[in-house]
Amino acid sequence: MKRFLTYATGTALFAALPSFAQEVKTYPAPGEIVAAAKVEEWRAIAPSDLLVMDLAPDAAGKPRRVVIQLMPAPFSQGWIGNIRKLATAHWWDGTAIVRVQDNYVTQWGDPTEKKPLPEGLVVVPESEYLTAFKSGSIVRRWEEGMIKPAVTEVPRFGGNIYPQGPRILDAFAQSYSFTNGIPLAVSTHRVTTDKAITVAPDKIWPTHCYGMVGVGRNLSPDTGTGAELYTVIGHAPRHLDRNIALVGRIIEGMEHMSSLPRGTGALGFYEKDEERVPILSVRLGHEAQDVAAFEYLSTESKSFAAYADARANRRDPFFISPAGGADICNIPVPVRRKPSK
Amino acid sequence: MKRFLTYATGTALFAALPSFAQEVKTYPAPGEIVAAAKVEEWRAIAPSDLLVMDLAPDAAGKPRRVVIQLMPAPFSQGWIGNIRKLATAHWWDGTAIVRVQDNYVTQWGDPTEKKPLPEGLVVVPESEYLTAFKSGSIVRRWEEGMIKPAVTEVPRFGGNIYPQGPRILDAFAQSYSFTNGIPLAVSTHRVTTDKAITVAPDKIWPTHCYGMVGVGRNLSPDTGTGAELYTVIGHAPRHLDRNIALVGRIIEGMEHMSSLPRGTGALGFYEKDEERVPILSVRLGHEAQDVAAFEYLSTESKSFAAYADARANRRDPFFISPAGGADICNIPVPVRRKPSK
Repeated sequence: MKRFLTYATGTALFAALPSFAQEVKTYPAPGEIVAAAKVEEWRAIAPSDLLVMDLAPDAAGKPRRVVIQLMPAPFSQGWIGNIRKLATAHWWDGTAIVRVQDNYVTQWGDPTEKKPLPEGLVVVPESEYLTAFKSGSIVRRWEEGMIKPAVTEVPRFGGNIYPQGPRILDAFAQSYSFTNGIPLAVSTHRVTTDKAITVAPDKIWPTHCYGMVGVGRNLSPDTGTGAELYTVIGHAPRHLDRNIALVGRIIEGMEHMSSLPRGTGALGFYEKDEERVPILSVRLGHEAQDVAAFEYLSTESKSFAAYADARANRRDPFFISPAGGADICNIPVPVRRKPSK
Repeated sequence: MKRFLTYATGTALFAALPSFAQEVKTYPAPGEIVAAAKVEEWRAIAPSDLLVMDLAPDAAGKPRRVVIQLMPAPFSQGWIGNIRKLATAHWWDGTAIVRVQDNYVTQWGDPTEKKPLPEGLVVVPESEYLTAFKSGSIVRRWEEGMIKPAVTEVPRFGGNIYPQGPRILDAFAQSYSFTNGIPLAVSTHRVTTDKAITVAPDKIWPTHCYGMVGVGRNLSPDTGTGAELYTVIGHAPRHLDRNIALVGRIIEGMEHMSSLPRGTGALGFYEKDEERVPILSVRLGHEAQDVAAFEYLSTESKSFAAYADARANRRDPFFISPAGGADICNIPVPVRRKPSK
């Protein structure tokens, strides 16, 4: 069992783990908090919001299915409308994975670049990369601050690095939050009244975390149609935020995208036809065969807040120094297949 | 060429790229800055600071070599001393890659857990996860602030999100810096004098970025010997900082670690012997065959400062909104094979 303990509490996000050290006060690992979440804290993902991509089987003949959750309104709806049309037209059937660049992206689309697009696709303006702040739910979360530093805990050495407790810190924006299962960067502006100067959310946009799906484009003002897509397979390339549209994230089968051989051409493009994994079909969830039921942990739930806090302040037995913070991509929104009972 | 332009300036870190839009003012991409760095800004990596791991060839019979740069003093030297002994004893020959967990780590060592370790390995205390701040070079960098926001630029929309210019922001520590090619998190304390209250560096520690190599361990107070190692193959798991020793980073052959099939056991461990990629040999660079000469861009050089600034403020033609910041793992230290001429 020795090796299995190594990192045990650092990882398994979605599995309940046993408590190792019952003689000392223990804190639940993030995965334990998720496993203990109430049934009503989970939100069903509508099959019509899934994009189901079946790749050619692997060398051993094993099927490879990748399931993408498309983002809800108000984010990127122009591109997502195009993607729905492309899927309904079976446009991706017979296309392929064209590029795998290490620590960056896996990209798919039409290798010939000559396949005619279906009619009725819209051209989405660059302004749609950002969304003006509106939702009450987001402001509540943002004001409450989901993540609190472990100020009551003294790490075994090294001191608490957040005595004054920055709670939600982002190197690429002024803050971050979550809404309806989506990780969001938040820009702010100052509001001055007679009584106080406060900071209020201004613009919000989804973030390039691991497994997020975005829309390939050419130089500005092109914004891409949605026919060429990519997913992040390395450290979050957050510099792409507000520069490319994000349309969803991979919720199952990510390993089929991340473990592909890296392309040897410029930017990781494959150079030979036979290197490209063929795409057999891409369908919306309600038009695909044998699609599992998925649900995500509501980002507005108490369990999600506790989970985010635990991700930022690891105090489960493996850890000796909780960080006192986390970047947004270190708090992946939990997703699971709906339990069958 | 259409597809090749997509992301062109978002990626190729180490290649010179042509300027696309000569009619408008252009800014160099990070890779162009690196390509233009002066010969004297590059630092040779001593062969004795390399760990060269030869895996069994891939299914097509192609050799797979992974080259690790061991960290310089004062970081993790106890574990690195153990690793030198293990390599000199040829201890890893015949071991294997035992675990590949998606968006987390690839780990290698002895699958039987019964192979006797060489004599003379030291037990390193947990206090060695951190280093007290000393170096003048680091404080200079830290005080100057390597990264400046693009305040003189107005993005085409969305406004500049850093009008007051936070320069070096880290969600997991109070600041970050680089020294001798190593990415470092920095904690700080306040210094009060008659004239001012300033903030000074306190402790420093290396960070869990993509490709960094760390030492597997069991529950505290175990700190690991160095016989079981892992590398980061996904988004930086910075919560492991100050909780596990980091000893180096992969500078060539990373794709052989990141593109392996994910393990299907708990935490990504392989379940069957035949799934494990055998390790043929691990040698220190000066004891290995046919080792290339490597060099890294001095993190104290002007070109590195310009590169870091460009990573945080992408203004090359693909980008319409520079982020105004970057996390430390989005500024990978450039490494190259020493040019032959």
